[in-house]
Amino acid sequence: MRATIMRAPGDVVVTEVDRPEIIEPTDAIIELAAACICGSDLWPYRGYDKAENRAMGHEYVGTVVEVGSAVTTVKPGDFVVGSFCISDNTCEICDSGYPSRCVNGGFVSGTQAEFVRIPQADGTLVVMPGGRPEDPDVLASLLAASDVLGTGWFGAVAAEAGPGKTVAVVGDGAVGLLAILAAKELGAERVIAMSRNPQRQALAKEFGATDIVEERGEEGVSRVKDLTNGLGAHSVVEAVGTQQSMEQAIGACRPGGHVGFVGVSHGVSLPGGLLFGTEVHLHGGPAPVRRFLPDLIDRILAGKINPGRVFDQRIPLDEAPEGYKAMDERRAIKVLLEP
Amino acid sequence: MRATIMRAPGDVVVTEVDRPEIIEPTDAIIELAAACICGSDLWPYRGYDKAENRAMGHEYVGTVVEVGSAVTTVKPGDFVVGSFCISDNTCEICDSGYPSRCVNGGFVSGTQAEFVRIPQADGTLVVMPGGRPEDPDVLASLLAASDVLGTGWFGAVAAEAGPGKTVAVVGDGAVGLLAILAAKELGAERVIAMSRNPQRQALAKEFGATDIVEERGEEGVSRVKDLTNGLGAHSVVEAVGTQQSMEQAIGACRPGGHVGFVGVSHGVSLPGGLLFGTEVHLHGGPAPVRRFLPDLIDRILAGKINPGRVFDQRIPLDEAPEGYKAMDERRAIKVLLEP
Repeated sequence: MRATIMRAPGDVVVTEVDRPEIIEPTDAIIELAAACICGSDLWPYRGYDKAENRAMGHEYVGTVVEVGSAVTTVKPGDFVVGSFCISDNTCEICDSGYPSRCVNGGFVSGTQAEFVRIPQADGTLVVMPGGRPEDPDVLASLLAASDVLGTGWFGAVAAEAGPGKTVAVVGDGAVGLLAILAAKELGAERVIAMSRNPQRQALAKEFGATDIVEERGEEGVSRVKDLTNGLGAHSVVEAVGTQQSMEQAIGACRPGGHVGFVGVSHGVSLPGGLLFGTEVHLHGGPAPVRRFLPDLIDRILAGKINPGRVFDQRIPLDEAPEGYKAMDERRAIKVLLEP
Repeated sequence: MRATIMRAPGDVVVTEVDRPEIIEPTDAIIELAAACICGSDLWPYRGYDKAENRAMGHEYVGTVVEVGSAVTTVKPGDFVVGSFCISDNTCEICDSGYPSRCVNGGFVSGTQAEFVRIPQADGTLVVMPGGRPEDPDVLASLLAASDVLGTGWFGAVAAEAGPGKTVAVVGDGAVGLLAILAAKELGAERVIAMSRNPQRQALAKEFGATDIVEERGEEGVSRVKDLTNGLGAHSVVEAVGTQQSMEQAIGACRPGGHVGFVGVSHGVSLPGGLLFGTEVHLHGGPAPVRRFLPDLIDRILAGKINPGRVFDQRIPLDEAPEGYKAMDERRAIKVLLEP
């Protein structure tokens, strides 16, 4: 089958590999209906993470073609959405709302391909009762639920976005944009998008942003304070993962407020004195998407949210290398791949 | 009047200084009934913070002797307890539960003396309806409420200690010990005290500790995991403020759990990847004691808690230098000073 392999930083190919097989009795094999390129895939692409012959992709929707002997809730023919985090959905940590840290967990990989093996199928996957949706926009939105929407949603939940709250979002990638959508859906009164890109600002507004702040760093923090009576936002979502974006997020948050960070941290070091002195709540990590999936699917099928709007390029799987390039150069917000 | 001055690290004297006067119309002058030495006073004593001719002390109970023209809820003759943090108790940040970060706030200083000036008297002080308690143990407990109890309590609240939870406490100073008391009072099922000092272990048990872990660092983390089905504690209170203690606290917490840190951070730097990877909630800072004071006073007067037990030395104010020495050498847990 064809699969997307990152041979080295900046070097992505679509090539023939062995089709995955059931290894554990809890596995399922899925034929992918769609996959996509994640902002986090750019870390190895840009040389910040290891990239040697890595099977890429962790977002997915598709049809189950085979299951292991221990799988009970998923069967061949089912159309499924799943989290990028593997989870049995039964352990104490899953039960507490953190399937992203399941004791039998891990991370899905290799979904930018024709087929993929999903471990812990019963816990990781959610079966779509109506089968594969006909509308390609609904399919794209379900694909988004697999990670990018779920991650933005977690950022907003971790930041305790809700009624009466002013929420600032640092980062205008797909996750940041969907954190705006999440904040709006969760009832936030005001959503400040921090972005200097006109196209992304437009989507931010479509998703519910009420204010745009173009400044970054200390200037950006000052602008958010100007908009919030000098206090800072109640809730701030960080969706980048750099030192500057973390400091911007913490700085833009009021004392006692909540910072939800979902950008994968790279080279970030937070002084204890900063956290002590600002007295914000800080919570983040890989998103426990599986916790949110049933709710997100409901909202998508009900037409309440349209997170698939972040895919501004939809291309055949074979063109994945061009998709990476477009995202790296910020010509595309997010690229959907059709196998 | 007599007051305790730190002239330089390790050099504390009790000396004659001018009696404080009303400066702002929102001020009150208090004649101290008791004060005490804080673990945080040891930072400058040991040379980690500035100490040049510093008027020491921020914990206090006493009798109001004078108020400014704008003070309305406190009057001369009132016996009061107050927070070490100054707060108007009316601003938006106070309202949200963070009087420790009041927009008109700051920190009390100079209570290891005969008299002290308390800014924002209406917001900072709580009047004892029954006046000065006759029982010296009750007086000591009220004094503890001013910071050390309130800080331990905040640590437990920030760590979301409560029914069904296993709470680990890093640090066996007075704050750590009172975080144990707080966790117990808040309904925790199991409280793990991390201490290797027999006297402090005994007080930890009196306050509600169900388990003692003597190991520190990675070994300490492993022991807590052993006690919690391999997962780590639901809640961890950090009450030291060093790199090792913060790492120990984060390491001992389960994914999705809560770390409340109240040790004043010194030289702490937290890798973003650690926070992302462990997926704990992190919250701490100067304790919003004023939020808790009415409840803490009720519990003390009802005889439900006896936080004054942390004072294992009660000495005259003039002997403050010896008190500092005893705490520095860990011969005393906490020293009460009687002016």
